[in-house]
Formats: sequence, structure tokens, C-alpha cells
Amino acid sequence: MTRDALKIVTIGGGSSYTPELIEGYIKRKDELPIKEIWLVDIEEGKEKLAIVGEMAKRMVKAAGLPWTVHLTLNRREALKDADYVSTQFRVGLLNARIKDERIPLSHGVLGQETNGAGGMFKAFRTIPVILDIIKDMEELCPDAWLVNFTNPAGMVTEAAIKHGGWKKTAGLCNVPIGHRKQAAEKLNLPEDELFFKFAGINHFHWHRVWDKTGKERTAELIDLIYGPQSETESHLKNIHNVPFHYEQIKDLGMLPCGYHRYYYIEDEMLEHSIEEFKKGETRAQVVKATEARLFELYKDPNLDYKPKELEERGGTHYSDAACELIASIQNDKRTDMVVSTANNGTITDLPYDCIVEVSGPVTSHGPEPYNWGAFPPAARGIIQMMKGMEETVIRAAIDGDYGTALHAFTVNPLVPGGVMAKTLLDELLVAHKEHLPQFAEKINEIEATQPETVAYVSHLMESN
Amino acid sequence: MTRDALKIVTIGGGSSYTPELIEGYIKRKDELPIKEIWLVDIEEGKEKLAIVGEMAKRMVKAAGLPWTVHLTLNRREALKDADYVSTQFRVGLLNARIKDERIPLSHGVLGQETNGAGGMFKAFRTIPVILDIIKDMEELCPDAWLVNFTNPAGMVTEAAIKHGGWKKTAGLCNVPIGHRKQAAEKLNLPEDELFFKFAGINHFHWHRVWDKTGKERTAELIDLIYGPQSETESHLKNIHNVPFHYEQIKDLGMLPCGYHRYYYIEDEMLEHSIEEFKKGETRAQVVKATEARLFELYKDPNLDYKPKELEERGGTHYSDAACELIASIQNDKRTDMVVSTANNGTITDLPYDCIVEVSGPVTSHGPEPYNWGAFPPAARGIIQMMKGMEETVIRAAIDGDYGTALHAFTVNPLVPGGVMAKTLLDELLVAHKEHLPQFAEKINEIEATQPETVAYVSHLMESN
Amino acid sequence: MTRDALKIVTIGGGSSYTPELIEGYIKRKDELPIKEIWLVDIEEGKEKLAIVGEMAKRMVKAAGLPWTVHLTLNRREALKDADYVSTQFRVGLLNARIKDERIPLSHGVLGQETNGAGGMFKAFRTIPVILDIIKDMEELCPDAWLVNFTNPAGMVTEAAIKHGGWKKTAGLCNVPIGHRKQAAEKLNLPEDELFFKFAGINHFHWHRVWDKTGKERTAELIDLIYGPQSETESHLKNIHNVPFHYEQIKDLGMLPCGYHRYYYIEDEMLEHSIEEFKKGETRAQVVKATEARLFELYKDPNLDYKPKELEERGGTHYSDAACELIASIQNDKRTDMVVSTANNGTITDLPYDCIVEVSGPVTSHGPEPYNWGAFPPAARGIIQMMKGMEETVIRAAIDGDYGTALHAFTVNPLVPGGVMAKTLLDELLVAHKEHLPQFAEKINEIEATQPETVAYVSHLMESN
Amino acid sequence: MTRDALKIVTIGGGSSYTPELIEGYIKRKDELPIKEIWLVDIEEGKEKLAIVGEMAKRMVKAAGLPWTVHLTLNRREALKDADYVSTQFRVGLLNARIKDERIPLSHGVLGQETNGAGGMFKAFRTIPVILDIIKDMEELCPDAWLVNFTNPAGMVTEAAIKHGGWKKTAGLCNVPIGHRKQAAEKLNLPEDELFFKFAGINHFHWHRVWDKTGKERTAELIDLIYGPQSETESHLKNIHNVPFHYEQIKDLGMLPCGYHRYYYIEDEMLEHSIEEFKKGETRAQVVKATEARLFELYKDPNLDYKPKELEERGGTHYSDAACELIASIQNDKRTDMVVSTANNGTITDLPYDCIVEVSGPVTSHGPEPYNWGAFPPAARGIIQMMKGMEETVIRAAIDGDYGTALHAFTVNPLVPGGVMAKTLLDELLVAHKEHLPQFAEKINEIEATQPETVAYVSHLMESN
Repeated sequence: MTRDALKIVTIGGGSSYTPELIEGYIKRKDELPIKEIWLVDIEEGKEKLAIVGEMAKRMVKAAGLPWTVHLTLNRREALKDADYVSTQFRVGLLNARIKDERIPLSHGVLGQETNGAGGMFKAFRTIPVILDIIKDMEELCPDAWLVNFTNPAGMVTEAAIKHGGWKKTAGLCNVPIGHRKQAAEKLNLPEDELFFKFAGINHFHWHRVWDKTGKERTAELIDLIYGPQSETESHLKNIHNVPFHYEQIKDLGMLPCGYHRYYYIEDEMLEHSIEEFKKGETRAQVVKATEARLFELYKDPNLDYKPKELEERGGTHYSDAACELIASIQNDKRTDMVVSTANNGTITDLPYDCIVEVSGPVTSHGPEPYNWGAFPPAARGIIQMMKGMEETVIRAAIDGDYGTALHAFTVNPLVPGGVMAKTLLDELLVAHKEHLPQFAEKINEIEATQPETVAYVSHLMESN
Repeated sequence: MTRDALKIVTIGGGSSYTPELIEGYIKRKDELPIKEIWLVDIEEGKEKLAIVGEMAKRMVKAAGLPWTVHLTLNRREALKDADYVSTQFRVGLLNARIKDERIPLSHGVLGQETNGAGGMFKAFRTIPVILDIIKDMEELCPDAWLVNFTNPAGMVTEAAIKHGGWKKTAGLCNVPIGHRKQAAEKLNLPEDELFFKFAGINHFHWHRVWDKTGKERTAELIDLIYGPQSETESHLKNIHNVPFHYEQIKDLGMLPCGYHRYYYIEDEMLEHSIEEFKKGETRAQVVKATEARLFELYKDPNLDYKPKELEERGGTHYSDAACELIASIQNDKRTDMVVSTANNGTITDLPYDCIVEVSGPVTSHGPEPYNWGAFPPAARGIIQMMKGMEETVIRAAIDGDYGTALHAFTVNPLVPGGVMAKTLLDELLVAHKEHLPQFAEKINEIEATQPETVAYVSHLMESN
Repeated sequence: MTRDALKIVTIGGGSSYTPELIEGYIKRKDELPIKEIWLVDIEEGKEKLAIVGEMAKRMVKAAGLPWTVHLTLNRREALKDADYVSTQFRVGLLNARIKDERIPLSHGVLGQETNGAGGMFKAFRTIPVILDIIKDMEELCPDAWLVNFTNPAGMVTEAAIKHGGWKKTAGLCNVPIGHRKQAAEKLNLPEDELFFKFAGINHFHWHRVWDKTGKERTAELIDLIYGPQSETESHLKNIHNVPFHYEQIKDLGMLPCGYHRYYYIEDEMLEHSIEEFKKGETRAQVVKATEARLFELYKDPNLDYKPKELEERGGTHYSDAACELIASIQNDKRTDMVVSTANNGTITDLPYDCIVEVSGPVTSHGPEPYNWGAFPPAARGIIQMMKGMEETVIRAAIDGDYGTALHAFTVNPLVPGGVMAKTLLDELLVAHKEHLPQFAEKINEIEATQPETVAYVSHLMESN
Repeated sequence: MTRDALKIVTIGGGSSYTPELIEGYIKRKDELPIKEIWLVDIEEGKEKLAIVGEMAKRMVKAAGLPWTVHLTLNRREALKDADYVSTQFRVGLLNARIKDERIPLSHGVLGQETNGAGGMFKAFRTIPVILDIIKDMEELCPDAWLVNFTNPAGMVTEAAIKHGGWKKTAGLCNVPIGHRKQAAEKLNLPEDELFFKFAGINHFHWHRVWDKTGKERTAELIDLIYGPQSETESHLKNIHNVPFHYEQIKDLGMLPCGYHRYYYIEDEMLEHSIEEFKKGETRAQVVKATEARLFELYKDPNLDYKPKELEERGGTHYSDAACELIASIQNDKRTDMVVSTANNGTITDLPYDCIVEVSGPVTSHGPEPYNWGAFPPAARGIIQMMKGMEETVIRAAIDGDYGTALHAFTVNPLVPGGVMAKTLLDELLVAHKEHLPQFAEKINEIEATQPETVAYVSHLMESN
């Protein structure tokens, strides 16, 4: 376990985020004794891998570093003796996300690529792949850390740790980073003078903030951000800026995350999404266009630094967080981070063996979350429901059982139950057929008996 | 505590259900050494009390019993030395329920008088009254049992036990009775040859069924009731008959209760309710008409038995269950009943000190629920969410805090969040002003600053 | 699963208790459609099996019943298609119990055949055998109920259910039966007019009692049994009658079981045991003599009923409880019994998946315990410690790890830690060598390196 | 809450530890903007306060600091506007500890001034006083932090937080400090390169250790400290050095604390204590002599630094830990410390609202413990038992109920039950009469009815 001459592997290396990752490593060159960087992708991502991979090489070269950058479609070759493996892949690429969002929206239902109908399907597609990767890792790099920022990061991390048994997994998200910056800015204090405690699950967490005199500033931040005088402004690129109800948030007594808008003010969020859908500007479509522009930039043989445009991508800070996590493990830096990790009672309201997103220092043996304890009833109930839904989604993803999937759709608060749940589920199954081998039998049955479902999906996707 | 020569008190004695209650007592005349029956009501219910009270007297007389029936508006006089107190009152009478249902439906939102927007307001109106009754009981009949079947029965019972501290409270509901009968009928077996375990909260429970050979029949019942070949038929008068998804219920592995339709197939339930609303036939309106007819019948000086028409009222079996509960306590009968009672770990997924609705024998010292344990994740999450919502509603009912009420509306899955939650909350507050003294200040503020809210409510109620 | 023409198997059929068991079946002949009774024993028990087996045949014949009684050393033949399997075997026979008691007592330490040093060794010897039996049952009688009354009944039942995975196991003990009778007698009320709730683990439970007016009589019983005016008298044949401290029991607020003497008043219990040891009258020795007398009686070809002397054996009621449990399962009698069964949250202070001893009706699908909830702190702590000890013993019994066994000895409150724990452990390992294959390697090591241990054990056993 | 110009108060300021405390403040003069130090004591401690107080003044002066040192018997004057209050008082002075230890030992029972019979009586004497102090603080310094290092530190801290409601309390102990140093030394690594997690309760905690490569070193430390080749050496001055059983500790999988000797190897510890008792060298007697010598030194008007001899006192590092805790709160230093603080689920095996001793950074708003989770069964059971005992002791200390106190004695594993428990309890009650007003009635009764008890105590104390 002498980690010098590091081999760092990124699965989904052809992603447009890769330059941020490379920049993150370069920034931490004194902390990370990197020898090799391996960018892995699949056949369909070959071209993107080539483009962004060459750019990565230019970045490393421009930094004057002796690191070698390897591009490969051979995952097993890359994993061999790896020290850190980060995952940022997207099964089915952005086209899958377009389906995840557009099919529900065509019925007036939120797609929401993390916790909504779309997010559940992303989990169905991704979880079998992450479990496969872990099987390879057991054989090829049994001591490596797995840093997951593939969405839905909470469910994918839970599958990896609880079902795959890979204890050395940490899930990451950029949402808390934005909230930290927001608080510092609103209070006009340096971020590192504040103490933050986040607790919840991915894209569904709350936080509290203290200053260095020991005073809790949470209530004041609620006033500043959501109070009558505030000009609420979401710091997230990908979430529409609808104001929370000030009185409710005051009663909550904690700061919500941006994604709580989908649960606390769902009608307005839905309305906005439907407008985007009508204009052909769902988030996935916008991102696809942005990506196309980014890859055009990346092709420039003179570009050897992360272009500013990448920050508009929405997932900014994600990759930097991954680099910091790796650096903190590598050097026992004990950086205070917000990580998806095993609960083990940190949040007493949630199952002992589930995955939660919480604050704590990242040590050389992994995250050591601060204890959180219990939530007040209104927050407790809603997060328990989300966790029950997540567990049901993960079970469906692994077992490929249609009833379980329908159950997950039924209890998911962003999806209506009844006929609509079944309609959406059937259409999404058909639409994602090639990436859902575990549901193959049921999909065949739908295709055989519900021609209207197949027709609807084809028509919608063509019109895209 | 020598309970002979019983004094039994019914608060809300002017209810149209009273004849069923009286019939229940008469049926159990050998078990219940009744001396006095006191029917209590308030000024607004005076006339109904007189009508139904006289009928009660005729019923007792026809049964040749020496019991005296007392009609009074003086609650304290009635409570003095009472042995059993049953509560079936409705603060604001059926007109309040009409508001509870029609205001939300006018915006296309379910009112739902138990767990929806309407149910939350029923809790706001009722909980302060039940706590007042308990204060009187502490002084006037400190050993009496309180048998609550005022809705929302779960929240009212939780307020009584947890906040009022009245340990000798049992909450009752007729829903489980219907499900027992349904199972027996579908399996073509006598009901008492089956063993039932119900678990959940009021109007949100599941059940499992075994036969006397020890075989669990739950899965078979799911097939019979919800399977492809079944002709699903709700046994509940007041719940629209929409089929559950068979695959989901199979995955659930327990039998749902009728009210789960509002959560599992909400769109269809909403659609149906909106149709009723448009026809002026919301449940409250239908009930009001039924009640009017019943009271016409009750006026008949020759009627001295419970008329068949009462069974159409929807709450049938409620009063009989109350009589059986009293008889079981009185005689240590240990009748297996489903009762809202202190959790104390019976359902490990819910707070230790909350109220749950579970199965068990009713002994002379009260219900002794069978242990239940944990639910599978999808059921666990959704009931935990409901309990968190209930606790928030109870807190709002006691504290009269607007933010807490808004928070309850926000997390209640039958109410959309955002602007709509606030609109409904404000309108319902204004509409129920006279029965919500704890919210007086906020209601005054709304009336002063939101004339459109006041106007909307007035207009809607006039058009009723 | 049509259980008519029952095949009932008793493992350890050569026990002196068998006549009580046969008597119990005969008493319930109308409830139990028995076809065959199989008494199984091992080579060493062959002679006793022949004696008691013949007597069983005479008893059945005298009762005029058509049942066949089979005696066999072939366990698998007996288990084939069995409906009920009861276990009352003793690995190593009474000689093993003599070692369990005398070796500790020779050092001035309690042996105590259920929870003390002796009990732990009984668990080490018994648990591998019960797991073997279950393996046979999986193959030969997958639907049978396993009724265990082999001590330590709690740990053996936990091994069967949690580690063996045999859900249809119920553990029985006669201690609660005695306490029920005692309460009825002290209150001068028929036993069936009282309602009992027992909770705890085998030989370590407390109980509360209510009468049929709903009044709790626990405090009154504490006064009657343990108060200043009482003449405390243990109803248990095998537990020395030392008075509890009245003030402590009043603070406890529940009735202790007889075995609590070993924990609450350990010095006096130890003193008494040492006296017995010195006189060569440890419980095992007394029992061995009683058994010898019983088998002499059993040999009488004219004896065809359970002799009165059997009641002095100490375990009286055990077998009758087993018959009642079987009859209650068979007929869905729902007899209120105290059974070792899966906790599943019945006692919230103990692990969800452990085995507890609690009250509840025995239905056709098994025991349905009444929920208990939490204990007050002093009771909570001590029973949690006992359960932690039990789990450690079971782990040691399965894994055969010496450190785990030493850890169990160290935390067991009836065994001193330090040098004495190790001395006792080593001596008992050597003494029981032939029945502890899982510890073979360590025992060989002790024999090779600690001749004084071997010598001490030989000498002590010879002097017996 | 602008904490500059600090007023720091020490209750029990006449303690021999005070010079370490003063030295600790002086060492941190750049972090602690102290204005006033108040040393408070009671009439009986007046002389010691004068001696050590003058020395404190000399130390401050020698350091060239402008701080004023105030000596007072007026606690309320001292508490007025205090910022930090530390408590190191001993109700009944060292003579009380002598009784705590000698009375049990005269019967061959451990006194053990923290968790044994002595510790329980120290709790009985101390808890009413700490609750009184808190009442004063509510009025006089509502924002102050209470830093408790009065033993039994765990129970006193639990009384302060849970019963006194003083959330801003932190309990401290020097035992973890010694274990940190021991681990660093054994591994030959700087202490700050190791990551420690301690969990348990005061004087009953375990710990795990990681190095900066992420490797857990716990097993290696078990080998080094307790393995066959080790020369075990307790780092604690006040605990006799008996070796743990290596195999048991390996099975435990965590490092024990020194006090676990009293539980894991009680016989040897008792034997050693009895020897000390016979020689008149119980720990209390030794400490009393040490103290006398220290106060002789302190009288020296030229001594203006902490004398080396103080380190032999046993409680070394205690005061320095208190200073570091204050400095860490004051400056948001986030020093990783082991503190007695509210559990809130940090250790899931223990009650949510109890006090535990755990690791975590000390922030400006107090300790933020790292989550710990669950223990393995053998450790879980024994600590749960200790916590149940602690809760019972605290209840007895507050209520003054004899039965509760007897119950605590009965379940405490260091005290035999039965007649001995009662004997010890009665004798200690009589011996400490003047400091146990809550038990006055019972003590009077004992004095009136048990002259032999009174005589025994008098005789023993005279012979001291």
C-alpha cells in the first residue's frame, strides 16, 4: 500500500468534464505523485475519448509534468494495479438522458435525471455496470479507492458499497460546494471560517452553518437567502430558480439544497420544465448542445487548459472535488468534505447500512463523518421516504423485477401513481431497451403486447 | 375501579351514528352493566341531539332495558364520574367538511377529510378540543377510558395520548373491519378462522392473513382481489373504486387498505373527486344529504331501531367497534381488534412514542398489540413520511404556527407544494376562522392583506 | 401441509422426562391426531432409551390409543416426514453436567448449567449438534416445527433460528409456568383470570401481571412475595431459596425470575453451591441420583403412567409445555405461552435478529408475541449485557475460536475474569474434549503444554 | 458573545491540580485573551485555596501576564459573567474518597473511585452540587461553557447536560491522552501522524488507531502492548499493572482502556487493592500523602512554576486538556479531542440522550464527534450494562431513593449483590451522611435501627 507512483483511472474518460479533472490533478501536483492517468471509455465514446484525451495530454505537457496519459477502451487493462478509480460514465450517453427527461415531460411529468423518473432509469442502467466494474476491481486492484460521481450518485454509491461490497467507495457531488460558497458570500465571511454540517442523501440534504465565534448562523442565512427581502438566486446552473416559502424554511430550521425545490415547490418546477420541453430546451438538450460546443473547442490543438465555457456545463466543481478527495486520502489531509458514504448510524433516522451524504474530514482511511443524529419530523419523514424509494430502485436495478420497478415509480414523489406510473415505466423500458438487459423479458412482452407504447416512444424520439 | 353501574358518555352525541352506538350497547347488554348513557353536544348541535337522543331513548325502551339516557349541552356534567367516554364530534359540523373538500377541489387538489388538506384542517380544529376534554377528564373522571373515533382518528389519538397524556385512550376505525370481511369472503372461510395482522397508521395500514392450518394467505388474497382475473370492488362506501396495480401490490407483499388508493393511484382518485366536485357531489355533500334524510327518519316517534339506511353513511361498523372495545375492556374479553394505540416499538420503523394502528387483543387494561417489527423499504419509507407529516400537523394544531402548518402542507403528498400549498392553506384558514383560535393572529393578517383570498372563499362557499 | 396422521419425533428420547411428554400427548389425544411417536437417541443412551421407550409404549397402550411408538438410534430415519420434532438431548449426558458444575465449583466459581460457565460449555457442545439436526431437517422434513427444550434453551434456539435459519423453531422453558402458578396462588385467583407479560431471555426474564378488572397487580405481588412480611419461597426445585432485596425489586417494578438470584444475590447463591459441592451434592449429582431412581421405576413392567417422583426432577412442566405448544400450533388454539422466539423488535432494547423469551398466543403459524418495548435502565443494561454474552458464546460455539470463548467467559457476570477465566476455560475444554471437535486444535495444544491442567481435571473427575 | 477579556472560573480552585491548570493557560497565552481567573472553594478548602491561589498568582506574575487571579469562597460572585467555568471540586475532600475506598475494601470489595461503590457514592455527593452550580449559571452566566473534570466525569456530565439542561458542558478525562501517547510510542510514530477514534463512556472506552497511509494499526498495537512478547506497562499512575488476556483482546479487536482491568481481570485487581488496603496504602491514602507534600511545596514563596512532583498525582494531563478544550472553543481550533458529550446517536448501541466519551474536533460551538456506530456483541453488552448502571446511579443521586441506590449497587459489576450490596450501601450512607442530604431520612433510619452499621463505620474510620 505504498502509494507513490500513482495510477489513476477514470471510467468515462471521454466525458467533457475530463479537463476539469486534469486541471484538478495539475493543481495538486505537489500532493499527488501521479505516474499514469488512464482514461477509459467504450466503443460509442471512442471519438470523444480521443478528442478530450489528446487535450488532457496537452494540459499535462503544458504543466511540464512527467505523467503519462493513456487512452483505452480496455477497462481491465486500465484497472490493473490502479490506486484510484473515478467513475463519471453515462450509460447510453446524453441521448439516454434526453429520453429520461423528454418521455416523462411529454406526459407532463418531471423527468429529473437524479431522483425522478429519469433518475430511476439512470440507476437501472448504471448499477449493473458499477457492479461489473467492482467485480473487475476485486481481481485487478483490490486496494484501490473508488470515487464515484456518476449520477444518481447516492444510489450508485449505495449499490457499490452495500451490494458490491466495495467499502473503499466515496460518492461525490458538487451541490454542497455551491451551498458553501453561497453561505460564505451571503455572510460576507471567508468560507473556511465557517463550519458546515450537511446531512441527508444525494441531492436531498440540508445543512447548518456556524461561524468561528461558535454562533450558529443558519437562521440568519435562511433570512438572507429566503427571507422577504432576499432576491433568491439559485447557485446551481441546472435548477430553475423558484423561491422557497420563507415561513416553511424557517420552520424547517435548516438550509435546504437546491434540489428540494422539486419536492417543496413541485408545481412551479414542473411548469418551468414543461416550458423548456416545449421549446426543445430540456436540460439534457441544452447540455448536449453545450457538449458539442465544448468538444469543438477541445479539438483545438493549441488548447492546453480548461476552457471557461466548461463552467457553464452545470457539473462544475464535481471533478475538482474528486481531485481533492483523492489528495486528502493520499495525504491524510483531513479536508472537510461532503461525501456519500456508509451511514452506520450517522443519521439515526435512516437504515444503519444505507448510504448518506454527510460532512466530515477525509482521512487517509476514508471519510470520517461527524455524527448528525435525528431530524425534526417533517424533514425526517420526507427523507425516509426518499431512502425507501432509493432502496426499491436499487433492488429493481439488480433483480430486474417489473413489480419492484413499478413500486419504486409508485412511491417516488416526483412521479404520479396509477396509470401514469405504468405508462411512463413501460415507455422508458422500451426506450432504453438496449441498456437494460435485466428487464429484457418484460420489455419483449411490452413490445409484443403494447404496440402503442412502442409507437409513442419512436414518434417522440424522432421528433426530438 | 369497580366498574358496575356504568356511566357511558358520548361527546358528539347528536351524530347520526348514535343509533348504531345504542344498538351496539343493546346487543351487548349482558356484557355491559350500563346505568346511564349521556349524549353530549354543543349549542349548534342541539336540535340534532334532541332528535337522535329521543330515538336512543326509544331504542333502549324497546329493548326493555333500565338504562337512563341523558341529553345535555353541559360536557362537564356528563363527564363527572364517567367510566367510558367516546368521542365522535365534528368541530364545525358537516359544513366544515364541505369546506375541507370543496376548497382544495376548486383548485384541482384532493380535499380528503382524513389525511389530505381537509384532514389536516380537521386536525387543526379537533385537537385543541380533545385536549380540552382531557383536561376536564383529569378532573372529573380520572379513571375513564377515552374511545376516540373522531377523525383524523390517528392524529387525534396521538394528540390525546402523547400530548394530552391520557394513556387510557384507544382510537378506532371501521376500515380494518371491512378488510377482514373482504378477506373472509374472498377465501370463503369464516372470518374467525383467519388470523389477521394489521400494521400502520390510521387510514394507512397494510395487513397479512393466515388461516387455521398456519398457511399465510396474503399472496393468494392479492391475486384474488387485485389479480388480472379479479373484479376489484372496494368494500368502502366512501372510497372510489379504482384498481391498484397488481404487480406493485405483489411486490409489496401485503394487502393495502382502501385509502392507499390516494397514494398509489392518486391521479385517478383526483380525477374522480373533481368530477364529484363539479356535480356538487363531493363526499361531504352526499353525506350531508344522507344525514338530512336520516334525521327525517329519526324524527319518526315510532322508529325504535337502527334504520337500514344508516349503513349507507360510510362509517358503518365504527360505532359497533366502539361498543365491542368497551365490552372487551369491561370483561377482559381479549377480542382481537385493530386499534390506534401507543407504538412503544410495535412498528420499529416508527417513533417509539407515536400512535400506530395495529392488531391485538383488547384486555381489561387496554390493547396489547402483537409485535409487528419492520416493513420492507418501499412501505417503510412512505409510512414514515406520513408519520412525519402527522407529527407536523399535530404540532401546528397545538402551537398555531403558520410556518409549521405550511410545512405540513408542503410535505403532505396529497397537497402540491409551492404557491398552491400556500393558497390552500390561506383559504382554509380564512374559511375555518371561527374554529381556529390558535391561528387567529395569522388569519387576521391574511384577511387584512389578502382580500382576494377572502373573496374567493366567500364566493366558493356561497356557490355551494 | 395437511397435518393429520402426525409423526412426532423426540431427539433425546431416552431422557427421564419422556414419560411426562407421553402423558402430555395422551392428555391432548383429542387435539393431536398422532400416528407415530419416534424416540431417537444415540449409542450411549441406548439402554435408557430402551427402558423409557418400553414404558412409553405401555403408557400409550394403557390409554387405549392406536399410536405406534418407535425407538431408534437412526436420527435420519426418524426425521423423515416428521411433523413436529422436539429436542431434549444432552450431549455428554449428565456426566457432562457434573463436569460443568464441579470444575468451576472446585475453584469457588458457580457452574450454573444454563448461563454460567457450565451453561456456556453446554452451548459449545449442543449448538453444533442442533445445527446438524437442522441440516437433516432441511432435507427430510422441511415443513416440520422444531420445539427445543434443550438447555441453554435461549442460546440453542438463537443458533437454530439465526444461524441455522430454521424459522419454525420455538424454545420452551418451565420457569414462566412456575411464576404463573405462584402469582395465581399469592393473589388467590384462578391463573386464567390473570394476564401475564413476560419479557427477557431464557432464564433471565421479568414479568408483569394484571387481573381481569384491568388492574396491574405487579407491585402487590412484589409485596406479597418479596416484602418484609413475606416468606419467600422459590417455586423452582433447582434454585436455592435466597430472598431478593425487597427495596431493589420495588425499584425494578417488575417481578424477577428465579434465576435472577444468580445475578442479584450472587454471593449467597455461590456460598450455597459451594456447600453442595463440598457435600458432593451439586445439582447434577442430585439429578443423576434421581434419574437412576427414576429409571429403576421405569423398568417396572407394570408401570404405565408417569410416576409422581418425576416431578422432583426439576424440569417438571417442560414437557407438558411442549405438548401444549404442539397442540396450539396444530389447532390454532392461540394458547397464551411464554416462548423463545425471534425478537423482531418485540423488546426494543435487544437486537432485532436475536431470540427473546416473551408472551403471546401460539397460533397455527407460530408464536405471535405481544409487543413489550423498552425496559427501565437498570434492567435494560443487565439484559443487554447477557445478550451480548450469549451472542459471543454462540459465535465461539460455531467458530471454535479460543479468544472468542475467553471473551465470553470474561464478560459473563457469573465467571470472574483474569487468570480464573482462563483456568476454567482450559480445564473445561480438556474435560469435554470428546464433545468439542470445533476446539480440537486448541485442546491438543493445552494438553501438550499444560500438563497441570490435564492432571487437575483428571483428579477432580476421579474424585467425583 | 464577543469573548475577549475572558473571565475563567474554576470551582474547586483549591485543588492541588490548579498549578497545572495555570500552567496550561500560560502556555496558551496567545490564544486565550484572559482578563480574570477566579478560583472558588468552600470553607473547608479555604486554607488550600490560599496556598495554591498565592502560587497561581506567582506563576502568572512570573509569566509577565496582566491577568488578575481572584480567590473566593463566594461562588456566585465568581460565576457572574463568567465565560468558562471548570469544575474540579471534590465534595467531602480526600477524606470522602478514603471512605469510598476503605469501606468496601474492608469487606474485600473494590471501592474504585469512579465506577465502583466509591464512584457511585462520589456521584451521589457530586450530582446535587453540579445541578446547583448550573442553577447559578443560568442566572449569572447563561452563555458560559462548563468544563467538567470532576469524577465520575461521565455521570456528572450526564447529570449536567441531561438533567441540568446545560448543553454547553464538556466532560474531560486524561485517560485517552495516555493511550494516545502509548500508541505513538509503541509504533514509534509522532502522535499527530496517527488518527484515533475512541468510543465508550468515561473510564470505559475502547479505541482504534490508523496511520497516515490509511492503514489501521489497531491489531498491531494489540500485539505490541498485550501480545506474548510484550512487557505490558500501564501508563496510568493510578491503575495497577495487570496484563490483559491477549487472546481476548484480539477477539475484541479494539484497544481497551486501563480501567477495563477492573472488568476484564477483576480478581487480580481486587487482590492488589486488598494488599494496598492492608498496608494502609489505598489510592486515596497515597494521594492524600502526595497532596500534603505538594501543598508543602506550594507554600514556598519562591515557587512560581508547576513542580515536577505534581505529575505523580495521577490526574496529570487533566488540567492541560481543560485548557486545550477552552482554547479550542475560543479559537475554533478544531483540536481532535476525546470528550464526554451528548451521544445523539454517535454510539448507536447507547441511548440517544445519554452522555458518551468520543473523539472529534472541538469547534467554537463545542465538540463535533465523529460517528462511531455499533460495537461487536461482547463489547456492546458490557457497555450497555455500564450505562444502565450509570443512569440508575444518577436517578438515585437526584431522587435520594434507597431502592434505586440499592438497585444501582446490585447491577454494578464491581459490587457483589445480596447481603454485601446492602451492607456496603448502608455503611457508605452513614459514613457520608453530611454530604447526602437527599438520603437523610433513610440514613436516620439506618442509624436508629442498625447500631452495628454505625459502629463499624466509626471503628473503621478511626483506625484509618
